[in-house]
Amino acid sequence: MLSDTIAAIATAVGEGGIAVIRVSGPEAVTEVEALFRSKTPLSKAPSHTVHYGHIIDPHNQEKVEEVLVTVMRAPRSFTTEDVVEISTHGGVVAVKRVMDLLLLQNIRLAEPGEFTKRAFLNGRIDLSQAEGVIDLIRSKSDKAFSVALKQVDGQLSQNIRRLRNVLVETLAHIEVNIDYPEHDVESFTSELIKDKSSQVMAEIDRLLHTAEQGKILREGLTTAIVGRPNVGKSSLLNTLAQGERAIVTDIPGTTRDVIEEYVTVNNIPLKLLDTAGIRETMDVVERIGVERSRTAVSEADLLLVVINANEPLHEDEMALLEQIRGRQAIVIMNKMDLPAQVDRDLLLRYVPEELIVPMSVKEHEGAARLEQAISNLFFSGKLESADMTYVSNVRHIALLKKARQSLVDAYEAADQFVPIDMIQIDVRLAWEHLGEIVGDTAHDALIDQIFSQFCLGK
Amino acid sequence: MLSDTIAAIATAVGEGGIAVIRVSGPEAVTEVEALFRSKTPLSKAPSHTVHYGHIIDPHNQEKVEEVLVTVMRAPRSFTTEDVVEISTHGGVVAVKRVMDLLLLQNIRLAEPGEFTKRAFLNGRIDLSQAEGVIDLIRSKSDKAFSVALKQVDGQLSQNIRRLRNVLVETLAHIEVNIDYPEHDVESFTSELIKDKSSQVMAEIDRLLHTAEQGKILREGLTTAIVGRPNVGKSSLLNTLAQGERAIVTDIPGTTRDVIEEYVTVNNIPLKLLDTAGIRETMDVVERIGVERSRTAVSEADLLLVVINANEPLHEDEMALLEQIRGRQAIVIMNKMDLPAQVDRDLLLRYVPEELIVPMSVKEHEGAARLEQAISNLFFSGKLESADMTYVSNVRHIALLKKARQSLVDAYEAADQFVPIDMIQIDVRLAWEHLGEIVGDTAHDALIDQIFSQFCLGK
Repeated sequence: MLSDTIAAIATAVGEGGIAVIRVSGPEAVTEVEALFRSKTPLSKAPSHTVHYGHIIDPHNQEKVEEVLVTVMRAPRSFTTEDVVEISTHGGVVAVKRVMDLLLLQNIRLAEPGEFTKRAFLNGRIDLSQAEGVIDLIRSKSDKAFSVALKQVDGQLSQNIRRLRNVLVETLAHIEVNIDYPEHDVESFTSELIKDKSSQVMAEIDRLLHTAEQGKILREGLTTAIVGRPNVGKSSLLNTLAQGERAIVTDIPGTTRDVIEEYVTVNNIPLKLLDTAGIRETMDVVERIGVERSRTAVSEADLLLVVINANEPLHEDEMALLEQIRGRQAIVIMNKMDLPAQVDRDLLLRYVPEELIVPMSVKEHEGAARLEQAISNLFFSGKLESADMTYVSNVRHIALLKKARQSLVDAYEAADQFVPIDMIQIDVRLAWEHLGEIVGDTAHDALIDQIFSQFCLGK
Repeated sequence: MLSDTIAAIATAVGEGGIAVIRVSGPEAVTEVEALFRSKTPLSKAPSHTVHYGHIIDPHNQEKVEEVLVTVMRAPRSFTTEDVVEISTHGGVVAVKRVMDLLLLQNIRLAEPGEFTKRAFLNGRIDLSQAEGVIDLIRSKSDKAFSVALKQVDGQLSQNIRRLRNVLVETLAHIEVNIDYPEHDVESFTSELIKDKSSQVMAEIDRLLHTAEQGKILREGLTTAIVGRPNVGKSSLLNTLAQGERAIVTDIPGTTRDVIEEYVTVNNIPLKLLDTAGIRETMDVVERIGVERSRTAVSEADLLLVVINANEPLHEDEMALLEQIRGRQAIVIMNKMDLPAQVDRDLLLRYVPEELIVPMSVKEHEGAARLEQAISNLFFSGKLESADMTYVSNVRHIALLKKARQSLVDAYEAADQFVPIDMIQIDVRLAWEHLGEIVGDTAHDALIDQIFSQFCLGK
């Protein structure tokens, strides 16, 4: 499969100044050269150089497009194969004209994710790095991008490989013990297994500890805004949306069944439940029986209850606060710029001090306090240091948990002096589960499934 | 203005494998270098080379994005200035992160079309070539793209410059005659003016002759499909739409007040009047009084009247054919795969033989014949040779007509022995009108207006 040459449009489709077609494979240079007229023939071009010229229809010698062509020779390319990138004018016709000609050459259309898959199969990146690439593209906030970039950079991989090395050494020790039992003391091996298992488990726990936060940073905190009419819910929504809003919701593949809106409260991404839902939810107190609102409220990781500081607490509001007791909720006391009328002591019966956030949505005041309150709830009060590794991928989390369970089994077996070759199985399983994260022990079907989630041209 | 450095996202916004940011100006290399960590410092990189590395936030030294950076040094670049292109991961966050950092440097956000404008102001391309660039991006069919590419290539410019040279020589001759009347015979100068004016007029006529066709190729032939119910109008629409359909209608800036659908009949682009309109129009015979249908029919450059060859001509159809007599219309005799029932002689009373196209829409038969019939109507039977220059831009057409009128005035004045310095004014006007096409004599306001129609990043 890796002996053929593939091509795809690498940039988003639509109106832009330029578009880029990526070609990768052993014939990339010669096949593009057959269509490209420039001063330097492409086959003579040094790696990592750019050439101006025209794509020519070989059948009638007509100029098809004016292009810049970049050559990156194996192994110094994204796929580690010869890669040619053709930069055309933007719009839909230019790329189509060039792609049509390329596909008449000995080049086939790349499958989604196939360039990254080749980078993986050719050993330039591992599976978790490849998964980071798609997370980069799909990321909806600055913070999620940072998390993914570290994964692409190999931070998670390094952690996993270190743990696997510990387990491999343990396995080697067990192997020696099984093959040459006369050279070893079995109880010493049991101690070693317990020691190493604990060590790796502790590291896995440390990684799993980041998972919940990693998932929030990656996918956003599912949030519903609730409250009585005219307390400022829509204004809150607008204020939040005006912040650092790095989100496009209409990217193909990112929309789900419900329409979602992403906003960030400083560094924390919120996934607001679909606007229609929120509009319903806004009247949640009156329409407590409405199915849709109820679903939105019940699905949310976080409820933002907006009340009006300028009015006494309404009985509907008390009913609502009572109803959501035990949920992760923050009360936004809006309109703090007006004289306070709300009974704080009454409010404190329902919600602790630190989860009451005075804001003036109208005056754009209090977003930092809201971030702090959210951070208190979900990040134990502080957003982590810059160089922290987050485990954010559901697949990785599941495998870490499996690996941990195998190590628990190994530890307990060693503790009970179960025969060493039985324990070996558990240690090996842990080693394999971790290997599946970086792709060393992953099946073809899994790999296919992972890359099929990619977009075309990556 | 040209002393500053500008940047913009050059690719379409949305999910893709990669995105590209373009930076141009005297500080492009040094300003990007300040953010870029790679093996070779950018300022030491030779022109037209590509460099792998990371964009770094200078405030905390954090990796912001993994990128490929291309350097193209003045004057060998799109703008003729130093140009740096930064290729980031696709999606919205990556480009935003990098753009945000760039704009904190001594770089400002480019205006729409500003890169192309700089290419024009720096003399690399003229105004008609620059206008071709936006036509390339906005083009909706292969043929329209070809027309625009020739314009970018300078075919129209060369024609215009040749004509302007003729006029400049004539003006020089007139100048000599005015300054040194003793050296010349006025009647000889009059003959020369008449001779040269005729020559240039003939060339302008040749160019204007392509204008109608150029406009069709560029914008599509506004077309309405009409006919009785169940004759196969929807199927015709679908069949046409299945052809070479290089069209996206939801590109920002291309949608107008009405929804349009673009299809091509082989090489001829048709702009089908908005589907809602067409659906109305389909029942045009019954609903002849419906305003919307009437508008669609009256606005169309081309009417495709679909009748059923398997049925006798209906009186509604005769009424319709009578009503549109004198319009550019083609009768599509559909369902030719079934036994013919229509009275051909009766039909021929309304429409000539060559405009009756037998088709079987169901069997996808007859599209080539339809193309030929359309070509007969609008292209005198043949789509031109590959190297023909089309004038397709409304501005160019208007200026050609003005230049032509000035030459008519000059010719007539010379014919009536009007004093030579009066004639000079007309010749100069013609020279200026032509100059405005290529931008030699265009005002700043016009130039600003033209480039403001461009998209960001071009």
